[in-house]
Amino acid sequence: MAVRRLLSSKFLEKVSKNYSQATIAGFPSFVKIVEVGPRDGLQNEKAIVPVQTKIEFINKLSEAGLSVIEVTSFVSPKWIPQMADHTEVMTGIKRHPGVIYQALVPNVKGFHSAINAKVNEIAIFGAASESFSKKNINCSIEDSLKRFDAVLEEAKKTNTPVRGYVSCVLGCPYEGDIDPEKVAWVSKKMLDMGCYEISLGDTIGVGTPGKMKTLISTVSRDVPIEKLAVHCHDTYGQAIANIFAALQMGISVVDSSVAGLGGCPYAKGASGNVSTEDVVYLMHGLSIKTGVNIQKLIEAGNFISSAIGRQTHSKVAQATKSSL
Amino acid sequence: MAVRRLLSSKFLEKVSKNYSQATIAGFPSFVKIVEVGPRDGLQNEKAIVPVQTKIEFINKLSEAGLSVIEVTSFVSPKWIPQMADHTEVMTGIKRHPGVIYQALVPNVKGFHSAINAKVNEIAIFGAASESFSKKNINCSIEDSLKRFDAVLEEAKKTNTPVRGYVSCVLGCPYEGDIDPEKVAWVSKKMLDMGCYEISLGDTIGVGTPGKMKTLISTVSRDVPIEKLAVHCHDTYGQAIANIFAALQMGISVVDSSVAGLGGCPYAKGASGNVSTEDVVYLMHGLSIKTGVNIQKLIEAGNFISSAIGRQTHSKVAQATKSSL
Repeated sequence: MAVRRLLSSKFLEKVSKNYSQATIAGFPSFVKIVEVGPRDGLQNEKAIVPVQTKIEFINKLSEAGLSVIEVTSFVSPKWIPQMADHTEVMTGIKRHPGVIYQALVPNVKGFHSAINAKVNEIAIFGAASESFSKKNINCSIEDSLKRFDAVLEEAKKTNTPVRGYVSCVLGCPYEGDIDPEKVAWVSKKMLDMGCYEISLGDTIGVGTPGKMKTLISTVSRDVPIEKLAVHCHDTYGQAIANIFAALQMGISVVDSSVAGLGGCPYAKGASGNVSTEDVVYLMHGLSIKTGVNIQKLIEAGNFISSAIGRQTHSKVAQATKSSL
Repeated sequence: MAVRRLLSSKFLEKVSKNYSQATIAGFPSFVKIVEVGPRDGLQNEKAIVPVQTKIEFINKLSEAGLSVIEVTSFVSPKWIPQMADHTEVMTGIKRHPGVIYQALVPNVKGFHSAINAKVNEIAIFGAASESFSKKNINCSIEDSLKRFDAVLEEAKKTNTPVRGYVSCVLGCPYEGDIDPEKVAWVSKKMLDMGCYEISLGDTIGVGTPGKMKTLISTVSRDVPIEKLAVHCHDTYGQAIANIFAALQMGISVVDSSVAGLGGCPYAKGASGNVSTEDVVYLMHGLSIKTGVNIQKLIEAGNFISSAIGRQTHSKVAQATKSSL
């Protein structure tokens, strides 16, 4: 027990110390973490979480110092029953100054509900794989983006920033490899439509760091690097290495999900989203600032893991929680 | 189910394809994997594994194409009861041509037993942390190494190659940070004693890739880079990123444990050794050859996981095993 206490407190202390140290050459001095646990994470968990638990969870994330939180999705409960409480959650949370509370919207109806619930930003969703687009929403990538035209128009009118997700950037469950040029094409299209940031998603977590570097090198020819984010899944255990490779390429925005909330919809029981705790540990170890208090973040992750009745997927949380 | 099949077979196929492709610039063309599951792994698992199961397990590892396997430890059963069957295991396995079967030895008595059982190589164990050495074996690092003098002498007489492990290279459970110069000093000492290779162990898995790079840069001033190996633990989820960073520094020997066998003795329930499946997936994704058939490797990992009654810790194995 004594050793455990020393182990966890010593290293979290060290992490805090590093946090105020000089930046390592070649890395960004600050990385913006986009916390996707409450939406992307909980949407892919079996448990139905009560509204009050979600609100408490999101408040804890705000207190941990995260600057962007994807709160919910303004989608029909027919499609995603887990997000039926979107308005209650969005209007129930305590707003922290400087924190951006984001929501996914699929259409104009969802956009108006989101604005009424006072979201700060919205996000829209595209794919880099034609087969994935066809199988999921029964249309081509180009047609799927056209459906967002009306949403983008409304967003312009209300000065609402729009974030764009691109899925399957390093592989597709239906067609395998994805050409980085195709990812660049979709990303540029979403940028031209008005998205201020494009998040590149390795939806099935098959990427390795060399491929991540090639991808970013290709996409950043069409989209400025500071407008790109990475969204890595840990399905094959490569997420932290892929994020490290992305940092080496100049990426400074990283999506992650506290406690690794959310499984892989294409492989039952396998890992999905990379856990925010492990990402923050990486950043602080590299002397990169995130603004996040890792201890409070771990507590938020342990809170929601216990609420949904499963073990945290974060190794950092497991290491600091366990005892001799 | 169909998607799962496509997912796993497609990507393992791709991995095999990459395996025959050209090398990515800056990376070694071949990485030697040192499989430590049967010794380092099983020694830290609760289950007592029957001799015949161990033999079958090691035979499966040989068939998977691993070139070095740490089979057992010729230590007194009083200290480590899990390894009491060392001679039976070492003499019971099927020797594959070209595969090196290695064992840990703590003293001259152990050395002679190992030679009688026809090991190809032996390994000895040192630490980079004075506190760790004192707490574990009640003497300084220097004195701990002196105890191996007689072993090294016997090894020279019989032309037996000796591998040296250095523990706590990126942090110690008792004293926290470890000075890379101290690691360089121990490593050089073991090299001068006659070790042909030095394996740098992040025993408690606290390292991050920037620190790994600094470490290798410091140690390789005293020990040629081709004589260095890394031995990463995944306790804080950083192992694959640390290995990737090590490859970028020119490291071409990596220790790992199939199915992530072996926990962290300093944090109950936390992860220990990085899993070989995830390491091999990384290598093949980077077009680095390993000689390993990843499908057979996964089978060996699933075999031993099932034998000891716990889930595999390998994400690659989880992803390919699970179904929709």
